[in-house]
Amino acid sequence: MKKIQAINLCKKMEDVQDYWSHEVVAEMNGHHFKLARIKGEFVWHYHGTTDEVFFVLKGTMTIHFRDHKVELSEGDLLVVPKGIEHKPVAEEECHILLVEKEGTVNTGNVIHELTHHGDKR
Amino acid sequence: MKKIQAINLCKKMEDVQDYWSHEVVAEMNGHHFKLARIKGEFVWHYHGTTDEVFFVLKGTMTIHFRDHKVELSEGDLLVVPKGIEHKPVAEEECHILLVEKEGTVNTGNVIHELTHHGDKR
Repeated sequence: MKKIQAINLCKKMEDVQDYWSHEVVAEMNGHHFKLARIKGEFVWHYHGTTDEVFFVLKGTMTIHFRDHKVELSEGDLLVVPKGIEHKPVAEEECHILLVEKEGTVNTGNVIHELTHHGDKR
Repeated sequence: MKKIQAINLCKKMEDVQDYWSHEVVAEMNGHHFKLARIKGEFVWHYHGTTDEVFFVLKGTMTIHFRDHKVELSEGDLLVVPKGIEHKPVAEEECHILLVEKEGTVNTGNVIHELTHHGDKR
């Protein structure tokens, strides 16, 4: 069995190069913890089978919902319930931790040029 | 439906008063995100039905395993796989985020004076 080790999220973020790409850093009960570097506007989408946690490590971002939007800063956590349409936006580069079921496609129900199939790690 | 909002983990930590107590701050797919303020030595235990994520928000802590130990600092994340005995220790006050299945008892397989049954929130 592999020795249990800690991962420093800020250091690990250096491995994530492309905006809206992600790196799986940990697995727990069939869920992935993923680091992402984001900038600009993502696509409206929803995830039909999983809630999704956003946690901001550095910078600021906005999550748009159809009826309101939420501004997130460092240390803020937000859960997008499954089935709820949302659009993440970051005016400047922002570093986030995502938690969701293994195998979740980043653009959910939408096929888009930003779609990543499968889990890169 | 309740409006989706962000939670600032540092600010929310002010609600957690007792050492080794915790506050549920978010729910995702049957899992709880919990804040805990820890100091001193916890009890050896394991969780038979859930992996457990530790993420350090402030301070330092050590997680002892039977064959090694891991030092964690701010920004470090570690997954304790289900069934693995561990003992968290913090020489000075440390603030952590825990992620585990809903209903997880903090001392796992052990009944102890530090045992909290159910999920306080």
